[in-house]
Amino acid sequence: MPPLQGYKRELDYTYSPGIFPTLEALHKRPHAVRRVLLSSEIHQSEGLVQIKALCDKHHIRIEQADKILSRISGKDNCFAAAVVVKESTPLQLDSSHLVLCQPSDKGNLGTILRSALGFGYTNIAIISPAADVYDPHVIRACMGAIFSINIQEFDDFNLYRKENPRHHLYPFMLTGSVSLDEATKHVLSPHALVMGNEGAGLPEEFQQKGTPVCIPHSDAIDSLNLAVAASLGMYAFSHAEQKNL
Amino acid sequence: MPPLQGYKRELDYTYSPGIFPTLEALHKRPHAVRRVLLSSEIHQSEGLVQIKALCDKHHIRIEQADKILSRISGKDNCFAAAVVVKESTPLQLDSSHLVLCQPSDKGNLGTILRSALGFGYTNIAIISPAADVYDPHVIRACMGAIFSINIQEFDDFNLYRKENPRHHLYPFMLTGSVSLDEATKHVLSPHALVMGNEGAGLPEEFQQKGTPVCIPHSDAIDSLNLAVAASLGMYAFSHAEQKNL
Repeated sequence: MPPLQGYKRELDYTYSPGIFPTLEALHKRPHAVRRVLLSSEIHQSEGLVQIKALCDKHHIRIEQADKILSRISGKDNCFAAAVVVKESTPLQLDSSHLVLCQPSDKGNLGTILRSALGFGYTNIAIISPAADVYDPHVIRACMGAIFSINIQEFDDFNLYRKENPRHHLYPFMLTGSVSLDEATKHVLSPHALVMGNEGAGLPEEFQQKGTPVCIPHSDAIDSLNLAVAASLGMYAFSHAEQKNL
Repeated sequence: MPPLQGYKRELDYTYSPGIFPTLEALHKRPHAVRRVLLSSEIHQSEGLVQIKALCDKHHIRIEQADKILSRISGKDNCFAAAVVVKESTPLQLDSSHLVLCQPSDKGNLGTILRSALGFGYTNIAIISPAADVYDPHVIRACMGAIFSINIQEFDDFNLYRKENPRHHLYPFMLTGSVSLDEATKHVLSPHALVMGNEGAGLPEEFQQKGTPVCIPHSDAIDSLNLAVAASLGMYAFSHAEQKNL
């Protein structure tokens, strides 16, 4: 393996900065972890003991790498990171999906992945162009949730739709004809919750697809933050489905 | 007025970076706007026309200030900012409140303020120590929602409680005894939704206060992001109250 570099999108690997995200990588994708980097300043802790035990079990090399750790984490302290190969993880065709159309903010992406895992949406389509879901900032923001989620990228929404023609679509739009409350009274599954970009939302044509949903809020704000809207949607839909079981 | 400085917490004024937050400041708190800064690269736009009209109406000075704009906005482009005096805005005693105990992340704070305005929680208590709610990053993240919200800071929760003894407390805790769904079946008002810190959550003693609420999620994640949890709480409570009107 060539020497490690600061993170770039072109690389075939990424870094999971932080002890918790490193443990998630080791637990969920041990075969994809090339090695684990530790800071010379890491303290003895329960987390460190677990990292060492998992690396031992899976024959993963540990090395001290202060320079690269500070490079990938910027201002934040970072005591550990796993070097993880980016894997293709196709969506499960019979599960419900979350579809993110051109999300542009890394923090939002990370927050959405964490909520998605919490509410059982473990199959996520990302429509390009989009922020890099493998960026270490996303992995840190999602607390390593990314290692438990299937993520598939598509060049446009129609390509996603072609592979998943049966999913009932719930596009989230300010002008959605049905409120979140109404929409979750009879949830159709498998379904896809479709979220637009932070600035522009979804194009008007989504008014004609499936059941366009709006999340009611006062007109004192233009729109909700994307991660908030996606999390509200996933909470309400997953919750409604559980009640109907 | 002395020359403008890069933002510091000690200053008695702050900056609202961006055209939209600047318009919010001019619309909602014109008396608190000392002046408006514009970039030499700002384009003619509907927003700029509105800024100029409002400054004219309220006799607010406009000046070109590229250096300070780039200082307060860091990497982001910033074409306009209002210089806004920090005002004390005490909570309304008969309204429901959101209480944030020691929130530490500026992005979360901004997202929470935006959701709060959208869901009608326009009275927010912040318990110290906490991230600086007047930081320009917060003002940008909340899209200027801060100018429509009463915000009062308290040194500890008991001081908040002393001034607001009648509010029914809903502390949000992973170990809350009542689910969000149950809690919103009969909402008591005026109430206070109480949220803990990003890392530690609320101290155990909150189990004994009011009705401790949990937001159900799978055990694949430790907790939800704070802005997501606060937004889910405000959405569900405000929504339940509207239905019961």
